[in-house]
Amino acid sequence: MRTISSAEIKNSSVEQLNALCETLREEIFRTVSTCGGHLSSNLGTVELTVALHRVFDFPRDKIIFDVGHQCYTHKLLSGRAPLFHTLRKEGGLSGFPKREESEYDCYDTGHAGTALSAALGIAKARDLKGEDFSVIALIGDGSFQNGLIYEALNSLKILHTNILILLNDNGMSISPTVGSTHEILNELKDSACTEDVALFERFGLTYRGIVNGNKLEELLPALEEAKETLRSSSVLLHVVTKKGQGYPFSENAPVETHGLDPKPRVEHSYSEALGDELMRLASHDERVAVITAAMTDSLGLRNFFEQFPERAFDVGICEEHAAVLAAGLATQGMRPYYAIYSTFLQRAYDEIIHDICGQNLPVTFCIDHAGITGPDGETHQGIFDLSYLAPIPNLTIGIPKDISELRAMLRAGLRYDGPMAVRYPHLGEIGAHCELEIGKFEVLHSTMSDIIVFAAGGRCISLAQKLRATLAKEGIDFSIVNARFLRPLDEALLASRRESYVITLEDNIVRGGIGDAIARFYRNSGKAVFCFGYGDAFIPHGEISSLSVKSGLDPDEIAEKIRGCHARG
Amino acid sequence: MRTISSAEIKNSSVEQLNALCETLREEIFRTVSTCGGHLSSNLGTVELTVALHRVFDFPRDKIIFDVGHQCYTHKLLSGRAPLFHTLRKEGGLSGFPKREESEYDCYDTGHAGTALSAALGIAKARDLKGEDFSVIALIGDGSFQNGLIYEALNSLKILHTNILILLNDNGMSISPTVGSTHEILNELKDSACTEDVALFERFGLTYRGIVNGNKLEELLPALEEAKETLRSSSVLLHVVTKKGQGYPFSENAPVETHGLDPKPRVEHSYSEALGDELMRLASHDERVAVITAAMTDSLGLRNFFEQFPERAFDVGICEEHAAVLAAGLATQGMRPYYAIYSTFLQRAYDEIIHDICGQNLPVTFCIDHAGITGPDGETHQGIFDLSYLAPIPNLTIGIPKDISELRAMLRAGLRYDGPMAVRYPHLGEIGAHCELEIGKFEVLHSTMSDIIVFAAGGRCISLAQKLRATLAKEGIDFSIVNARFLRPLDEALLASRRESYVITLEDNIVRGGIGDAIARFYRNSGKAVFCFGYGDAFIPHGEISSLSVKSGLDPDEIAEKIRGCHARG
Repeated sequence: MRTISSAEIKNSSVEQLNALCETLREEIFRTVSTCGGHLSSNLGTVELTVALHRVFDFPRDKIIFDVGHQCYTHKLLSGRAPLFHTLRKEGGLSGFPKREESEYDCYDTGHAGTALSAALGIAKARDLKGEDFSVIALIGDGSFQNGLIYEALNSLKILHTNILILLNDNGMSISPTVGSTHEILNELKDSACTEDVALFERFGLTYRGIVNGNKLEELLPALEEAKETLRSSSVLLHVVTKKGQGYPFSENAPVETHGLDPKPRVEHSYSEALGDELMRLASHDERVAVITAAMTDSLGLRNFFEQFPERAFDVGICEEHAAVLAAGLATQGMRPYYAIYSTFLQRAYDEIIHDICGQNLPVTFCIDHAGITGPDGETHQGIFDLSYLAPIPNLTIGIPKDISELRAMLRAGLRYDGPMAVRYPHLGEIGAHCELEIGKFEVLHSTMSDIIVFAAGGRCISLAQKLRATLAKEGIDFSIVNARFLRPLDEALLASRRESYVITLEDNIVRGGIGDAIARFYRNSGKAVFCFGYGDAFIPHGEISSLSVKSGLDPDEIAEKIRGCHARG
Repeated sequence: MRTISSAEIKNSSVEQLNALCETLREEIFRTVSTCGGHLSSNLGTVELTVALHRVFDFPRDKIIFDVGHQCYTHKLLSGRAPLFHTLRKEGGLSGFPKREESEYDCYDTGHAGTALSAALGIAKARDLKGEDFSVIALIGDGSFQNGLIYEALNSLKILHTNILILLNDNGMSISPTVGSTHEILNELKDSACTEDVALFERFGLTYRGIVNGNKLEELLPALEEAKETLRSSSVLLHVVTKKGQGYPFSENAPVETHGLDPKPRVEHSYSEALGDELMRLASHDERVAVITAAMTDSLGLRNFFEQFPERAFDVGICEEHAAVLAAGLATQGMRPYYAIYSTFLQRAYDEIIHDICGQNLPVTFCIDHAGITGPDGETHQGIFDLSYLAPIPNLTIGIPKDISELRAMLRAGLRYDGPMAVRYPHLGEIGAHCELEIGKFEVLHSTMSDIIVFAAGGRCISLAQKLRATLAKEGIDFSIVNARFLRPLDEALLASRRESYVITLEDNIVRGGIGDAIARFYRNSGKAVFCFGYGDAFIPHGEISSLSVKSGLDPDEIAEKIRGCHARG
C-alpha cells in the first residue's frame, strides 16, 4: 500500500475517507493472511483510527492502544505502509505499538489494562511541563474489566489532568466479554441509562456515546466534540464497533479470527490435550475445577466449559482475581486448575506467593505459551516464568517434555497436595503415555561418556537429541536427562551422576532457571557446568526457531561446547 | 484475658456485650502497647467483630479479613485470649489471620484486596459441595480501591454465589483514603445517593447501610437482616467505624497509631533519608516526581508531598497503577521515584517487566522494608525482591549498605537513563557521605587471605564485620566487599580477585539472589563459592535478629564455614 500523508487525511472528503477505509481493510486482510496476526480486532477499528487521524494531530497528540493488537491501521497511516508486508516478521514491523519503531507510537503495550494509567502519566507530565497536546487511551471492553482500569479511574480526580478514553466496545475479549462491567456497558448501549452515566461522572469523566465506531459520519463529529470537551474535563467516548467488520466470515467468527497463524501446523497442540485431560479428571473427581482469564478457547478449554459449566470459570481479563478465586476454592478442598499464558501469569505474581504458595494450597497452574512464542514479540514471550517461579517456597514446577507428559503431570497434580505449576509451549510432540512421580527426572540416554545434558521441555529435549545425532558422527556421545521438574529438583539423580561435564538446556532465560538450579546443586563439586537458555535481554518478534538460536540456544555453539568438554574429558 | 465462649456471646445482653467490648478494647490496648502491632484499626472494629460473633456461627461460617490487621478481636473471641500476650512474638500468635493457628481463621491475608475473591472461591466451593454456611468478607475502604476488588465485583454475577461484604469505612488506608471510590462512599454516607446504590446493584449486590459500626444496637439488627438477605443475594453492608475508637489519642492520630512499635529505636530510618534526599533532588530538578500507593507517611514522604504537591502522587492501594503511571510519566522525560515496601512490589511485577523494563524507562523503585521485617510475619517479609528482580533485563538493582549510600544511589539514579531498583531495610546506620558509580562494588577490607566475603546490604555488611572481629582472634582474616549492585554485577572487580574461597551474604532468600549471581560469574573458575541468605521457606513472625539467624544467616555457621576455608586454604 502507498504511503498516506497526514495532510491527505486532513483534506479528504468523508467519501474519500470511506474509500480509504476499504483500502486499509483490504491491506490488513491481505497482510494478515500471509503474515498472521490479529484480524478481527483490526478490521473492527479501521474507521475509528482513520477518524482519529483526521481529528487529532499525531505524533504531537498521543494515543495509547490498550493491549495494542488493534494498531495496524495506525501503523498504515503513520508512514509504515511500505513496511507493512514485514508485519510480525523478524526485523520487520511489530504487531504491537513500539516506541523504537516510530515516534507515532508513544507507549508500548501487549498486556491488557495499562492504557489509562499510561495516558494519565503522559498527560500529567504534559501539564507539569506546560505543554499542550491531547492524550487518548483506546481501550476495549474486555480490558475494561481489568483491575488496573479501576485503579486508574480511581486516580482521575487525584491527578487533575484530562485524558480522552475511547472505549471500543465490541462485546469481546478474545472470548466474549463476561461479567458485570460488560452488563453495565450493554445497558448503556440499550438505553444510555442515566445511573450508569452518573457512574462514569463519579470518576471524573464526561460520558459521551453511543457512537457507531464503524461509521465515519458519526465518529468525526463525536471526536471533534470530545476534543473540545477535553479542554475542561476527561472524556469517556463510548464507541461500538464490530470485530471483523467488513469481512462476514470474520464478523461471524470473531474468536476464531482474533489471531491468525498463517502456517499449517505440523506439531500438536498442548492446549487441546489440556482440555481433554482435565475433562477426564473432572469426570472422575468432583473436586476438579477450571479457571481462565478470558482465554477459554486459546487454552483448549471450550469443551470443558461446555461439559462442566458449574466447575468452569472464565472471570474475564482478571488474572489476579482468578488466582485468589482458585486459592479460595482450594481452601475448601476443591482442586482448581488455573490455565493461563506464561506472560500473563506475571500479573498474578503476588497472589502466587501470598495467597497460593503462602498457604500451600493445591492449585495447579497450567502455563501455556511458555518459552519463546514468536511473532507477537517482547510482550508475549514466555521466557521468564521459570525464573520468577523458582524462588517461591512450596511450589512444584513441572516442565513436560511432550504432551503425554503434560497429561501425566496433570494427573500427578491431582494426587499431590500442594501448589504446582506446569509450563509448556503452544505446540509439540504427543509422545508415549506415561506416569511419573513428582520431582523425578527421566534418563533418556545413559552412556559411558563424561558429558551429560540436562534438557527441560520438548524443544530442548529435541535439541539435545539432534545434537547427539550430529556429534555421534564425530564419535562424541553424551547422556541425556529429561529435567522435567525444576522444583523439587531430582537431587538423588543429580547426586548419582558421575559425569564431569554438565550441560543444561532450557526454553527460558538462563538467569534463575533450571540450569542455575542444577549448577547450584553441583556448586563446589568439581564438575564443570554450562547453562544454555536465553540471554539477559527482551526478545523481539520473529520465528521461534530463529529467535531461539539467536537468543542463546544455538546448536552450533552448544555443539562446540560439547566438543570442548569431550576434548578435555 | 479469660476465654470467652461462643455460647456466652450468644446469650449475653447488649449491655453485657458492650461491657465485653470495653474489656476487649483494654486488652488490645494493653497488648499492643507491649507487643507492638496494629492499634487504631483494631480499636475501631471491636463492636463489629463482637456483633459478627453474636450473629454468625464461627468456625462453621467463614470470615475473611482483608489485609487481616484488624483481626485481634476475632482472635480474642475464638479461644486465643490466653495466648494473646504472645501476639507477634516468635512462636506466639500471628498479628494476621493464620489457618495453621486456628480453624476460626479460614484464609490467610496480609496484602490488600484479596478478601472478595477468596470469599467468592470459598462460597462457590460451598455451593458445589452442597454445604450451607455464610461467607463474609470484611474489607476496609482503603482496600476497596484496589484493582482486585473490581475484578472480584465483576465476577459476582458470573459465579452465581452469595457472599456478605462488610465494607468497613473509616476513611483511612494507612494514610487517609484518596480517590473517586472514596468520594462515592462519602456520598453514600452523606445521602445514600440512589445512583451510587444502583452502582452496587449493577454488580449483583444488595446494598445496605449506613450502619454505625461502633454501635451494637445498630449493628446487630443490620447483620441479622444481612444474614437473611444473603439467602437470596450477595449483600454489601456499609459500616462506618472510627479508627482508634474509644482512645482519643488514637482517634485523633490514626496514621501515627495505625501500627505501633514497642521498642525505642536505636538505629536510623532509611525512609526519613529517602524523603529528605528526594526533596533535595526535586528542588534542583523539575523532572523529579514521587509516587506512593497509600503509604506516604510510612515511606518518609510526608514532607515531600507538602513541599512539592504538584509532583507527588498518592494513588491509593493501587500498586499496579502506580507503576504504569510512573512509566507514562517517564516516557515524557519525567523522573519518577516509586516508593513502596518490598512485599507489596510483588503486586506490580508484570508492570515492572512489561511497562518499565520492557521500555527501558528511567523509573526508580525505592524498595523499603526489604529483607526480614520481623513481627508482621510471612506476608510482610521482604525476602523475595532480589530474586524476582534479578531476571529482568534492563533493570539496575542497588543494595545500599547504609543510609548515605541510599542517598548516593538516588542521586546516581537521577543521572542514569534507565530503570533502577534500590532496596533497603527499615532501619540502619547513617554511614559516611559518598558518591558512587552504578555497578561498582566497594572493597571494605582487602587482605592477603585466600578468603573473600561479598556482603549485600547493611545487615550483612555488619554481620561480615562482626565475623571478621571474631575470627581475627583466631588468626583468621578475610577480605570484605560491599556488593552493592546485583545488576550490573561488578564483573571487573570479580574478575580481579584472587581469593579461592568466596562467601556471599544477603538479606534475601539465597535462590536467585546476589550470591547466585556471583556464583554464576565464578562458575567453572575453580573457586569455591558458599552462599548465605534465607532458605527455601516462608519466614514467620518474630524478632528480625533471631529470625535472620534461624532462617540462614547464622553467624556461627558462617564462621565455621570460614574456618573450614581457612584450614583448607
